[in-house]
Amino acid sequence: LPLRPRDTVHVVAPSGPFDRPLFDVGLAVIAERYSPVLRPDLGSAWRYLAGDDSRRAEELSHALLDSSARAIFCARGGYGSARLLPRLPLADAAPSLFTGFSDLTSVHAALQVLGRVSIHGPVLTQLGKQPPEVRDYFFRLLESPEAPPPLTGTATYVPGTAEGHLVGGNLSVFATLLGTPYLPPLDGAVLLLEDVTERPYRLDRMWTQLRLAGVFSRVRGIVLGDFTACEERGTDYTSGDVLRDLARESGVPCAAGFPIGHGALNYPVALGTHVRLDADSARLTFLEGAVRA
Amino acid sequence: LPLRPRDTVHVVAPSGPFDRPLFDVGLAVIAERYSPVLRPDLGSAWRYLAGDDSRRAEELSHALLDSSARAIFCARGGYGSARLLPRLPLADAAPSLFTGFSDLTSVHAALQVLGRVSIHGPVLTQLGKQPPEVRDYFFRLLESPEAPPPLTGTATYVPGTAEGHLVGGNLSVFATLLGTPYLPPLDGAVLLLEDVTERPYRLDRMWTQLRLAGVFSRVRGIVLGDFTACEERGTDYTSGDVLRDLARESGVPCAAGFPIGHGALNYPVALGTHVRLDADSARLTFLEGAVRA
Repeated sequence: LPLRPRDTVHVVAPSGPFDRPLFDVGLAVIAERYSPVLRPDLGSAWRYLAGDDSRRAEELSHALLDSSARAIFCARGGYGSARLLPRLPLADAAPSLFTGFSDLTSVHAALQVLGRVSIHGPVLTQLGKQPPEVRDYFFRLLESPEAPPPLTGTATYVPGTAEGHLVGGNLSVFATLLGTPYLPPLDGAVLLLEDVTERPYRLDRMWTQLRLAGVFSRVRGIVLGDFTACEERGTDYTSGDVLRDLARESGVPCAAGFPIGHGALNYPVALGTHVRLDADSARLTFLEGAVRA
Repeated sequence: LPLRPRDTVHVVAPSGPFDRPLFDVGLAVIAERYSPVLRPDLGSAWRYLAGDDSRRAEELSHALLDSSARAIFCARGGYGSARLLPRLPLADAAPSLFTGFSDLTSVHAALQVLGRVSIHGPVLTQLGKQPPEVRDYFFRLLESPEAPPPLTGTATYVPGTAEGHLVGGNLSVFATLLGTPYLPPLDGAVLLLEDVTERPYRLDRMWTQLRLAGVFSRVRGIVLGDFTACEERGTDYTSGDVLRDLARESGVPCAAGFPIGHGALNYPVALGTHVRLDADSARLTFLEGAVRA
């Protein structure tokens, strides 16, 4: 269902501990439009986690089950949500829209296994730094049943067009779903990938795992978002060079440079909805909205 | 078959480019005992690879097929061997013993899928730095049909004992085999894991992938080698703390601190042979040799 202003929304921290001032800026953006609810222990920290597994699982489980809420926003990515997957009540989740990216790719995937649509979009520590056009696009995606405007990338790696449901997210998190029950349906999909601070040989290693697992014989197209801070110093090749070669080997239509991920612009997109990729013009067209009227 | 002095052995570089002086020291160790053959383009470098996929695949394929050779040694790990797996003639490989570790974990796994024994042991750039007791242990393992002496670790993470065939190697490479056809047989196995320069949250992420993929409900025991340079600065926990907690969650008998991996001592062990882990005394006993008389 579309969100309306003042709807109740949950704010959760299922991954890493976060910077509170940055989080507060993002929370204020949400609070201007909706009515966020959050637990007082949201700001917990334990090692590289926003509190132990019990705290994070209880918080996210409650948010998923609450049918009075219309959306779930995440404080930050980092690492940790995959640890919770076996204890989340995913099959009983209310129809609220889960949002987030990066480490939250694992939650998106687990929801998509169950046929759910969710929003690959900014976390709260990132939202405050996003310009008004991204915020407005986010609110429109949450509130309107219409397909959002298309997004454009900057490069064609493999020409061609593809149409299918959108899957994926963070490459390093997506790769860790291989071999588990949480890999989303891939046949006929358009695969979105982005990442941050992964050196080129690591991008190759993760992409090669996808290749050996048969992912590129199942998906129809590849949309590459930002690969932020992925360069290796002192080399004569870029992460873009490596990704272009990997895409060409994979042989699937692929365009790169979409404003999605850890960069200055993280346009939200609805995973599980049908999209059309025109790799020749590096254009991603949305064939439906994230919510139904 | 056991190796004999002056036997022909192959030296290959299926992964990353390597430091030539270090390699030459390791090669000299091998050449004192056997007759190494190697291609003149072994020292090629292309980005983070020891030459392009064709060069590396041809080199390794020829070594695997050569029934006149008795063992295969690798120049270095790094990254790159998984890229070659679909084009290697693994099913037709001669009975020579493949040796190596780190990135070569992917080749070990692919051989083990076919029921082959191979040696998780030093690469040539590491061999020159290993003390005589490790070198002698290596030669003995290659040449004697008898079970080698047991190895001891330094810590019990989960008490108990386990017996089974040895699988595994480098954690980050092993995790990238999940979901692919190259995951070795795990039921009833004793799982060896080691790694280098992986921050604790990354160790958690990879271990969690193994958990979600059901690995710890299939293996009977876990042997942890060195986790070298895996500490995160400015934290109040160590990689050992994280691994101990992960092992306890997994519930499988586990001992740590074995002299296996990227540290000062990398004792070779035969993957695919039967071993007994006594986690209480952190002792790994070998029930058979790597070769048959």
